[in-house]
Amino acid sequence: MHIGFIGLGKMGYNLVVNLLRHKHTVVGYDINEELVNGIKAEGAEGVTTLEALYESLPEPRVLWLMIPAGPLVDTVINQLLAFLHPGDTLIDGGNSHYQDSVRRHQFLKERGIGYVDCGTSGGMSGALNGACTMYGGDPEVVEPLHQVFKDISVENGSLYTGPAGSGHFTKMVHNGIEYGMMQSIAEGFEVLEKSQFPFDYEAVARLWNNGSVIRSWLMELTENAFRKDAKLDEIKGRMHSSGEGKWTLETALDLGVPTPVIALSLLMRYRSLQDDTFTGKVVAALRNEFGGHAVEKK
Amino acid sequence: MHIGFIGLGKMGYNLVVNLLRHKHTVVGYDINEELVNGIKAEGAEGVTTLEALYESLPEPRVLWLMIPAGPLVDTVINQLLAFLHPGDTLIDGGNSHYQDSVRRHQFLKERGIGYVDCGTSGGMSGALNGACTMYGGDPEVVEPLHQVFKDISVENGSLYTGPAGSGHFTKMVHNGIEYGMMQSIAEGFEVLEKSQFPFDYEAVARLWNNGSVIRSWLMELTENAFRKDAKLDEIKGRMHSSGEGKWTLETALDLGVPTPVIALSLLMRYRSLQDDTFTGKVVAALRNEFGGHAVEKK
Amino acid sequence: MHIGFIGLGKMGYNLVVNLLRHKHTVVGYDINEELVNGIKAEGAEGVTTLEALYESLPEPRVLWLMIPAGPLVDTVINQLLAFLHPGDTLIDGGNSHYQDSVRRHQFLKERGIGYVDCGTSGGMSGALNGACTMYGGDPEVVEPLHQVFKDISVENGSLYTGPAGSGHFTKMVHNGIEYGMMQSIAEGFEVLEKSQFPFDYEAVARLWNNGSVIRSWLMELTENAFRKDAKLDEIKGRMHSSGEGKWTLETALDLGVPTPVIALSLLMRYRSLQDDTFTGKVVAALRNEFGGHAVEKK
Amino acid sequence: MHIGFIGLGKMGYNLVVNLLRHKHTVVGYDINEELVNGIKAEGAEGVTTLEALYESLPEPRVLWLMIPAGPLVDTVINQLLAFLHPGDTLIDGGNSHYQDSVRRHQFLKERGIGYVDCGTSGGMSGALNGACTMYGGDPEVVEPLHQVFKDISVENGSLYTGPAGSGHFTKMVHNGIEYGMMQSIAEGFEVLEKSQFPFDYEAVARLWNNGSVIRSWLMELTENAFRKDAKLDEIKGRMHSSGEGKWTLETALDLGVPTPVIALSLLMRYRSLQDDTFTGKVVAALRNEFGGHAVEKK
Repeated sequence: MHIGFIGLGKMGYNLVVNLLRHKHTVVGYDINEELVNGIKAEGAEGVTTLEALYESLPEPRVLWLMIPAGPLVDTVINQLLAFLHPGDTLIDGGNSHYQDSVRRHQFLKERGIGYVDCGTSGGMSGALNGACTMYGGDPEVVEPLHQVFKDISVENGSLYTGPAGSGHFTKMVHNGIEYGMMQSIAEGFEVLEKSQFPFDYEAVARLWNNGSVIRSWLMELTENAFRKDAKLDEIKGRMHSSGEGKWTLETALDLGVPTPVIALSLLMRYRSLQDDTFTGKVVAALRNEFGGHAVEKK
Repeated sequence: MHIGFIGLGKMGYNLVVNLLRHKHTVVGYDINEELVNGIKAEGAEGVTTLEALYESLPEPRVLWLMIPAGPLVDTVINQLLAFLHPGDTLIDGGNSHYQDSVRRHQFLKERGIGYVDCGTSGGMSGALNGACTMYGGDPEVVEPLHQVFKDISVENGSLYTGPAGSGHFTKMVHNGIEYGMMQSIAEGFEVLEKSQFPFDYEAVARLWNNGSVIRSWLMELTENAFRKDAKLDEIKGRMHSSGEGKWTLETALDLGVPTPVIALSLLMRYRSLQDDTFTGKVVAALRNEFGGHAVEKK
Repeated sequence: MHIGFIGLGKMGYNLVVNLLRHKHTVVGYDINEELVNGIKAEGAEGVTTLEALYESLPEPRVLWLMIPAGPLVDTVINQLLAFLHPGDTLIDGGNSHYQDSVRRHQFLKERGIGYVDCGTSGGMSGALNGACTMYGGDPEVVEPLHQVFKDISVENGSLYTGPAGSGHFTKMVHNGIEYGMMQSIAEGFEVLEKSQFPFDYEAVARLWNNGSVIRSWLMELTENAFRKDAKLDEIKGRMHSSGEGKWTLETALDLGVPTPVIALSLLMRYRSLQDDTFTGKVVAALRNEFGGHAVEKK
Repeated sequence: MHIGFIGLGKMGYNLVVNLLRHKHTVVGYDINEELVNGIKAEGAEGVTTLEALYESLPEPRVLWLMIPAGPLVDTVINQLLAFLHPGDTLIDGGNSHYQDSVRRHQFLKERGIGYVDCGTSGGMSGALNGACTMYGGDPEVVEPLHQVFKDISVENGSLYTGPAGSGHFTKMVHNGIEYGMMQSIAEGFEVLEKSQFPFDYEAVARLWNNGSVIRSWLMELTENAFRKDAKLDEIKGRMHSSGEGKWTLETALDLGVPTPVIALSLLMRYRSLQDDTFTGKVVAALRNEFGGHAVEKK
């Protein structure tokens, strides 16, 4: 298939290379010229304006967005409206909120333009060598795209999840589970670390990856991490997050689903970004008030 | 009543003064001579050996322990065994684990000695001016003590809770609830603090103490704390704990009771004592492994 | 002051009676004629159309909304726009989301109409006999209203919290704390209930209300509840919620504040509304898959 | 190696077959004669008394216990004391508490008997076809056993973890992580289930097992479970537990490690075993007390 690709960041770049390897024709666009030159060296065409991107594609156009979720997606969609014709298809491969995808699908559908929301998992190596893709949209719109998603994914690693929004919904929940799994693994290693036993964390992670109930890709990555830095002495335990765990919890709240583990995985990330807490100050002050327990002074 | 009082720390000292005010005769014992002299100035007798303490009391003896919970209680009980006679009564007014109290009751009962476990709440000011006492023991043993507990407590502030161990059990659960309430209040104030509004925390606490659903002594103490230090700038948010919250959670686990709020109140205290966490390091390392998200270096 | 009061439900009705007792002149409006007749018997004027309500008030008008939070508030505001003039003031005394209040304040300010958001705590008895009110708005708009809020509140039970939205924000956080406190108390009593001791819950609650650290109005209500039904045998443990706990958590997520206790208080409410859970089915199925642990069949 | 195997339940039986396949000589013992006959048919010797078991082994004896954790292990060890000689080795392959293992190791070491604590993961199929084994003990005692553990495990699936107790400690933490992972996965699927989209859970699980960040053996088992029962309609969501999650949390509490996700995974299991809760009754009663919110009657 002939695809216009918007956004050549670390995920987008790797996906384009992946597409090229599977004999798809890709025109890559980015505002960063260096990235455009890079993707040309990989065998793609490269352009630096959306107009040029659009002109370079056969009708009906298929455009793949791989840009940071949020208002930027709406901005780019609005810019593209100048070019898009009925029958064209826009794939949002980024981490957009599923409700935005439902809205954008409706907005574009009213203009005759197909919209597909595709969540992509597997990290950068997956983007390059075989991703996991989950995509939603109208059946007639996704029909010509099944093979593309299949090509860039590992075997059985692509799924048409249903109506528009369901692809990003699936990816959102995937990330919620990921938060919980990561926190579970991490808590376990902290229990090991505080114990009386002199564990070799890399060895334990490798062990658990071979035959245990908790073997998993995340445990393999844990093994890798400890191989590089046996006690993680070099890094700080500040756990940033990019939004999908929060969306999962907010969605669970809207749906009335009790998700304590996903909730706490997120809240502990927030806590990790604080050096001191107002909550702690209040509790320390209260203990001092009623029990005369000394507070620690700054 | 004529009472031998062992342990003149901040709680014990205040309780003795409280007993004296209610016309009880108290012989105070402590290894710290200064405290013994102090309590003598308050109108108690004072001794510095357990033998002297015991000799100074009429039969049957009533002894009140107010010492740090744990092995020290067993140590003192073993020392007292040299003196105690059948018919004597030992009150443990400290924060002992209820299972220790059940055990000690059985041990002393076999020797004809009465045992009463008394939990005491209300902080230091309560100990002095009217505490909240909850006590367990054999009915015939507690019978002569009801009035003593009533005297040192505020009106309706003493309760015979049932069999030995139930007094300390009641106090333990009281503290578990206290942990949850304190964390609830503190989280609320942190939401205020992070908001867009310039709240006056003392004013809000005072407001909430007058007519609101959450009016409580802990909120009054919150008001006091903010009056002294408007934003708690002077103190660190390190939340220590002295064991009863942990016991409540452990007991809940043994009983199969889901107590997520008490659990998290405790775990956030532990978290507050850590500057960085191994959990956080593992999660940060994993995010780097799969997503190329930068870790923060030490 | 002469006040037009919109909404004579259980909270509104009691507030009007409270206002009347403090010599304010109130015109009550409700679509339910029975409630209007009731409030007339209490000494208020009563009307059944917004137009009549508006006509009955001296300029500048002061209107107090006490209706269910949500779209209905916007609907009523839009209906009132036909009558309202610059200089009039609208008080929203319901449980509106603070962001709605910020928005409505801006919307009305552009039309010269004052807007005050007032959170009200204390339950129905408070509404009648002395509430706890926390209100935000522009200083010049709230200026003539301070005395009104003071009148209907207990002593020190009213507070001007700052800019528009801050009143409902304060009430929202108050409710978040309330969720946590209630869950704390409830968990504690479940630990008592599952223990080996035959506790008298009413007696324990009364005890804790007298001299203990956790004495509070909620504990007094706990005592009342056990007085009426010693083991709560008559009622189901289904914990409904009306939104403010959810808002507090959502706000905390937006502000990056870790509030695990408020979060879990809410999630356990959701859990209590489920008879069986899909989460549980998945875990049970997994235990069967790897360990051969029997699942319970429906 | 020549091994006496005590306990031919589902895990033990499979491990013996696994040992036999690797050319080890096994004498199987169980009080259930049927199981003994079964294992004889597999190529092991079989006995029905501990004396016969002991007599059948060459010196120094190696005995492998695979029996339910708890007091039964001490009982069997005490029975074996009648036969064991210095130089013999006892392997506890069950899910014993690591502190029991530390104690038993010390007890047996004082009698010249070697003790090895071995945690086994991988479920029944792992026991048969390649397990994951983590074992602790004195270096000279485990030296002759490394090859045995290697034989019955998958490649890289056995690890000598260090001093006595560390094997069971590692297995305990493994199970704590397992609890958290299972709850994470299950919460995610409940969010899918409550959503507006008609997901095919088996398809989603299969997708996530191919290329996604959360691919794992537990997700494969999830896929299997949904293949057998597409919506798990047939089973109840009651989540039993066999103790190791509780031990992990208790150990974390002792070590001062905040493990909120492991804690909540456990508490939600407890919650799933309750049809109604006292906690819920108290909260419902309180809402009725202050707000007049209707309670649901039984």
